[in-house]
Amino acid sequence: MSNLYNQIVIFGDSLTQFSHNAFEKGWGAALQYSYIRKLDVLNRGFSGYNTELAKHLLPQLLPKKNNPTKNPKVFLLIIFFGANDAAIQPSVQHVSLEKYKENLKQMINIIKDPDSPYHSPETRILLVTPPPLNEEARVKHKGLKDRKSDVTAKYAQACVDLANELNVPVLNLWKLMTDKVTLTNVTLNDLLSDGIHFSSLGNETLFHELLDTIRKNWPELDPDNLKPLTHLWTELNYEINLEQQVNSLEFNIINQLGDSL
Amino acid sequence: MSNLYNQIVIFGDSLTQFSHNAFEKGWGAALQYSYIRKLDVLNRGFSGYNTELAKHLLPQLLPKKNNPTKNPKVFLLIIFFGANDAAIQPSVQHVSLEKYKENLKQMINIIKDPDSPYHSPETRILLVTPPPLNEEARVKHKGLKDRKSDVTAKYAQACVDLANELNVPVLNLWKLMTDKVTLTNVTLNDLLSDGIHFSSLGNETLFHELLDTIRKNWPELDPDNLKPLTHLWTELNYEINLEQQVNSLEFNIINQLGDSL
Repeated sequence: MSNLYNQIVIFGDSLTQFSHNAFEKGWGAALQYSYIRKLDVLNRGFSGYNTELAKHLLPQLLPKKNNPTKNPKVFLLIIFFGANDAAIQPSVQHVSLEKYKENLKQMINIIKDPDSPYHSPETRILLVTPPPLNEEARVKHKGLKDRKSDVTAKYAQACVDLANELNVPVLNLWKLMTDKVTLTNVTLNDLLSDGIHFSSLGNETLFHELLDTIRKNWPELDPDNLKPLTHLWTELNYEINLEQQVNSLEFNIINQLGDSL
Repeated sequence: MSNLYNQIVIFGDSLTQFSHNAFEKGWGAALQYSYIRKLDVLNRGFSGYNTELAKHLLPQLLPKKNNPTKNPKVFLLIIFFGANDAAIQPSVQHVSLEKYKENLKQMINIIKDPDSPYHSPETRILLVTPPPLNEEARVKHKGLKDRKSDVTAKYAQACVDLANELNVPVLNLWKLMTDKVTLTNVTLNDLLSDGIHFSSLGNETLFHELLDTIRKNWPELDPDNLKPLTHLWTELNYEINLEQQVNSLEFNIINQLGDSL
């Protein structure tokens, strides 16, 4: 019997790694809570990593196709890099704009290319752009200028451009947060705790947009449209065999999304 | 290649299901964050469930022994039931005190009995008792008296007794919270939002005690003693082959705890 729920994999740098911080309303934990009893949200965040490292790591995080074993399905892969690629030289984190786009493309192809050992038609992909940088706060926190606001903006745009080229959904976090600062009373300091990482408000902002983006692009993955894998306790008939009633977990995992793709 | 980190499985009722609520500092999310890049914390919480249901569900959540496929290892299973078993008749959730103990014992044996198809020497087990009940708040919230404070206390004690009989570590949450109310200025209303479920402070209280209990019983599972499965970005040499350096995930997962058992 299988013990593993199907998955949403969130793959990124510290903006993902830190997203399970329950004391800052982490967006990853909030996403996991939205899918409780339905899907596991696996945090595959790697602080400091750029796409140059990520492209080598990704295949190790994915099930191989044609694997005879019953792997859980990855229904959604969120790829969320760029904040470190945008570091300026001589930072070792720096990756050129062109290379950043190329690396993102390679990661997408690991899933989409029918010849890839990790080809998976059931895996939806969502790109997330880096958020805007609060240069002043970053310098204050880090003690040096290793990133520039207008450079990060270019990486965000490159991510959007690539998504459009490849027809992959994208959450433009740079625009979302920049608009919020321009159009409301919220400041970048309210959204980012140290110029680059999310505050509670930043986490909440991303989380809500993420759910909206999922709902819009893949209504079948809307948590409200997914049934829990096990009966609610109020649905059970306590007068008859309980074991039979709770014994359908494996079946439900295997058939969770039916033929929605 | 394996894509799956080894696991901590948290198995319980709504007190576990709700534990990934990032907006209330959920103890499950906080635990996940403590183990980030080291172990996955899988939420297997089932609101309303009692041990009578749980004992049928548990085998479906675990890998079978002698399974030729590379399942992730469950290094720690937290069993956290009793709040619903303690419901008073005629509630369908009610399970007698004796049956509650017997069901917990059966669940433990699913792991510990060498003849069980789910026998797993590497799986440490931690029992958690139900928290104290705030009768007044529960009645106010629910509109009827379906649980009694002194009855829940007996289930907590039964859980401790069984743990001692079977030499299984136990976190006495009932005592922890009762002591906190007796010895400090904190009230049950501060710890439980509706008489039974945790507030932010309740979540934080359980989370810290949980980490302490893990550290005390299994120092090898102390998150501070576990290495991240992948190199920190600052450990990498950017002058030489990066792919090789990030290519050890599977090896690290397989050898994560060495021969610590």
